[in-house]
Amino acid sequence: MAASYVRNLWYMAAWEEEVPQEGVLTRTLLDEPRLIYRLSDGSYAILADRCPHRFAPLSRGRRDGDRIVCGYHGLTFAADGHCVRNPFSDRVPPNTQVSSWPIVARYGALWFWPGEAERADPSLIPDFSLLDAPAPIVRGRTWMAANYEFITDNLMDLSHAEFLHIETFGTNGALFDGQHSATKDETGAVWSNWWMPATRPPVWAESMVPEGGKVDQWLEMRWHAPASMALFIGMAHAGTDRQDLVIPAMANPHIITPETATSSHYFFTREPGERAEAMARQVFDEEDRPMIEAVQRSMGDKDFWDERPVILNVDAAAVRARRRLAQLRREEAGEAALEMAE
Amino acid sequence: MAASYVRNLWYMAAWEEEVPQEGVLTRTLLDEPRLIYRLSDGSYAILADRCPHRFAPLSRGRRDGDRIVCGYHGLTFAADGHCVRNPFSDRVPPNTQVSSWPIVARYGALWFWPGEAERADPSLIPDFSLLDAPAPIVRGRTWMAANYEFITDNLMDLSHAEFLHIETFGTNGALFDGQHSATKDETGAVWSNWWMPATRPPVWAESMVPEGGKVDQWLEMRWHAPASMALFIGMAHAGTDRQDLVIPAMANPHIITPETATSSHYFFTREPGERAEAMARQVFDEEDRPMIEAVQRSMGDKDFWDERPVILNVDAAAVRARRRLAQLRREEAGEAALEMAE
Amino acid sequence: MAASYVRNLWYMAAWEEEVPQEGVLTRTLLDEPRLIYRLSDGSYAILADRCPHRFAPLSRGRRDGDRIVCGYHGLTFAADGHCVRNPFSDRVPPNTQVSSWPIVARYGALWFWPGEAERADPSLIPDFSLLDAPAPIVRGRTWMAANYEFITDNLMDLSHAEFLHIETFGTNGALFDGQHSATKDETGAVWSNWWMPATRPPVWAESMVPEGGKVDQWLEMRWHAPASMALFIGMAHAGTDRQDLVIPAMANPHIITPETATSSHYFFTREPGERAEAMARQVFDEEDRPMIEAVQRSMGDKDFWDERPVILNVDAAAVRARRRLAQLRREEAGEAALEMAE
Repeated sequence: MAASYVRNLWYMAAWEEEVPQEGVLTRTLLDEPRLIYRLSDGSYAILADRCPHRFAPLSRGRRDGDRIVCGYHGLTFAADGHCVRNPFSDRVPPNTQVSSWPIVARYGALWFWPGEAERADPSLIPDFSLLDAPAPIVRGRTWMAANYEFITDNLMDLSHAEFLHIETFGTNGALFDGQHSATKDETGAVWSNWWMPATRPPVWAESMVPEGGKVDQWLEMRWHAPASMALFIGMAHAGTDRQDLVIPAMANPHIITPETATSSHYFFTREPGERAEAMARQVFDEEDRPMIEAVQRSMGDKDFWDERPVILNVDAAAVRARRRLAQLRREEAGEAALEMAE
Repeated sequence: MAASYVRNLWYMAAWEEEVPQEGVLTRTLLDEPRLIYRLSDGSYAILADRCPHRFAPLSRGRRDGDRIVCGYHGLTFAADGHCVRNPFSDRVPPNTQVSSWPIVARYGALWFWPGEAERADPSLIPDFSLLDAPAPIVRGRTWMAANYEFITDNLMDLSHAEFLHIETFGTNGALFDGQHSATKDETGAVWSNWWMPATRPPVWAESMVPEGGKVDQWLEMRWHAPASMALFIGMAHAGTDRQDLVIPAMANPHIITPETATSSHYFFTREPGERAEAMARQVFDEEDRPMIEAVQRSMGDKDFWDERPVILNVDAAAVRARRRLAQLRREEAGEAALEMAE
Repeated sequence: MAASYVRNLWYMAAWEEEVPQEGVLTRTLLDEPRLIYRLSDGSYAILADRCPHRFAPLSRGRRDGDRIVCGYHGLTFAADGHCVRNPFSDRVPPNTQVSSWPIVARYGALWFWPGEAERADPSLIPDFSLLDAPAPIVRGRTWMAANYEFITDNLMDLSHAEFLHIETFGTNGALFDGQHSATKDETGAVWSNWWMPATRPPVWAESMVPEGGKVDQWLEMRWHAPASMALFIGMAHAGTDRQDLVIPAMANPHIITPETATSSHYFFTREPGERAEAMARQVFDEEDRPMIEAVQRSMGDKDFWDERPVILNVDAAAVRARRRLAQLRREEAGEAALEMAE
């Protein structure tokens, strides 16, 4: 699959807590190895993990304060990527620099902008204030050998819960009776909403409603390009207009960042504790990952639309997300063509 | 090697007994993962192992009688490939179907036709009635990391027995004195025949002939496209016109089906018992497979004829089989071109 | 990386002592598997490890004196590559031969010429008489998963010693004060010379000079195409015009031969003994190889010049070697084009 990423977007690079106090975090993002480190003023830097001299990974070197010293021949780079020292000469050749990109810490996550730096407006980072909730939470990262759009397909079509997650997230059949809709909001987000009014509560919630009582349930997945998703889950006593909640509303991030065209970083959160950890492990390792990776293997480097996928009603939001991303890709390709023509 | 398979042919897919009573057999044939299962009426179905909705392997789902339920979002397919149920709607989108092909059980083997279904005439399945013999037999399958035509080369030129199989099938030198001929019969088969008249019997048969007596021996390999071969072996007292047999005549299948351009399924039979099993293991695992796979590695994706192979007299039948297959390939390419032109 | 090797050059194939007394040595050189063996007259033969009949590796066969018998169908080849026997016929088809190349033993090494045999002049073998020194020596070979030109870069720019080899070959800072020059000699060699006059001796040599005394040190790497290098090391009392040596002058081969476009054989020598072995292991396995292989991974199949490497003063010799090789490559491409035009 020829990777063609939309460049002028914020991609989540890491949880802040993944970056070591000293040293650097190395991570391949959008096909390129990069290194991330914390500066003395508390901000962050992200550089290409490749010295422009003889192409050694800079992560094989060492930090010298906010600077990085290449471990091969000693060229030293500042956090903005400029070479500031050549140990064998007083002279640094002009334009000696390593690629760097804007990177911003927000909501406990680091967001980087692989496109044109001057367009990197932090107000474009999707709202993940749900991560600022005071409740203790575990920030996790998993990895899938699949293109990030297959993971988006998975998350934007939660109908699979009744088949793939029957042992974990299965809704006791409520999904079959529910209504699905795809909407768009003013932030550019695409929403995949399941509304399941007057349904039987799942087994674990039966004791919270009167005998034979019904609940209104909803599952709402919000997508921002490229693949930064948030899931909002709610359950209220039936007919109370979502007001009389049976359990507190829940909101979780599902943020996917391409490692390569066929592998992805998957950032999530979960409650602390062994039970929640075991649950996450089952959902990711035994249910979603094997299926999503099987889809990737099945597709190889074929183009999704060329294979003429069957489109069902429940795919509406996933398809909208794919189309929006394709549109952004075309726009950037068009801009690039214009620039070349000028 | 760009795989270019002849499509309108019967390929052996499996031994009948490989298909489980419940569940499905999954097997990659001609580059595509497929699943095979037994229907309630005793016949068989073969489907592409890929759901046309989001491309999940159907083998990750489950059977519902003669139908297959996808494990990702629950689309359900009949044995002919048509989608018969969408669990989230009463409506199945038109043309929702998974690829299926004709499959026929004959001689204890399953034969499938990857080409145009309307041309799949079971009378074109090569005659393997030798498999209907009442004697107990073990049906085996092995696998080689080599293009199926290299295995055909191996089998259609048995002169290699005197070098590669010196410890197992060596003919005690009779092959060197024998005559080789390549013929064709009315079924379209190519035959590779070794006729070794008035030769010393092999060591294990010496006690069956008078002291110093001679035998007439023959080895005849029959090939049908794509690579379905049968080996007929005989030994008679010399000069008896093949009538006075020293041992009963033997006939064994050597049926090769491409898994991919560089790997093959190899179906064979052998006598029951540990000795025959050890013999098969030595011949396949220590003699033929290492050599054939070394040829494949040596060739990589180079074209056989482009490499200008030296042609010896003993190659006559192997070369004919290659040419016949190339001709069939050209014919299909020509038909395809015609169709596109129309 | 499309491998485009200069053909009309001597490449080191092996140390003489690597070739077994009986049997053959197999080695992939310039992308092609080859076999090397010793003839009864003490000279050597190098053949393609691929039978021209059905492309079996000849190394799976056996030797018959100075001849090689293919283990698949028994074709027998003389040391010059001509087929001299077809066991199933008195007739050998015309032009049945396996590729062979000139190979010459010199300095305890075997040199082969992958180009036009008539141009293989042994006087063009670079002078490695340093290998004829009487002192006991261990001839070694290591392997790196990197294109040979990245290894040349490493060796022709020894400034990396102060960073990568700080624990082994570090010069105690003398390199930083030294002068680097790139020169060319009448044999076509490119030299990378470090001259470090009036510098502090390294720690291990302090006891050999008067208290506070200075030394003149030099490191001179000589390169012949394709990548046959020799390192000359010296240390003299300061101001004695290289005459009053502190330690005997040293000279070591660093001869690189491409295995494939992305892997290389690296021939070296070292002093006998455990300490020297441990030192070699540290330098190769912990210092140079990880860095050079990281450069290869970082570059993938990108072209070195397309990536616009920063050029420092200390790169002068390495760049000259790269340019010389590129020139040879162009010359051969030009000759080939001329031949085709004729």
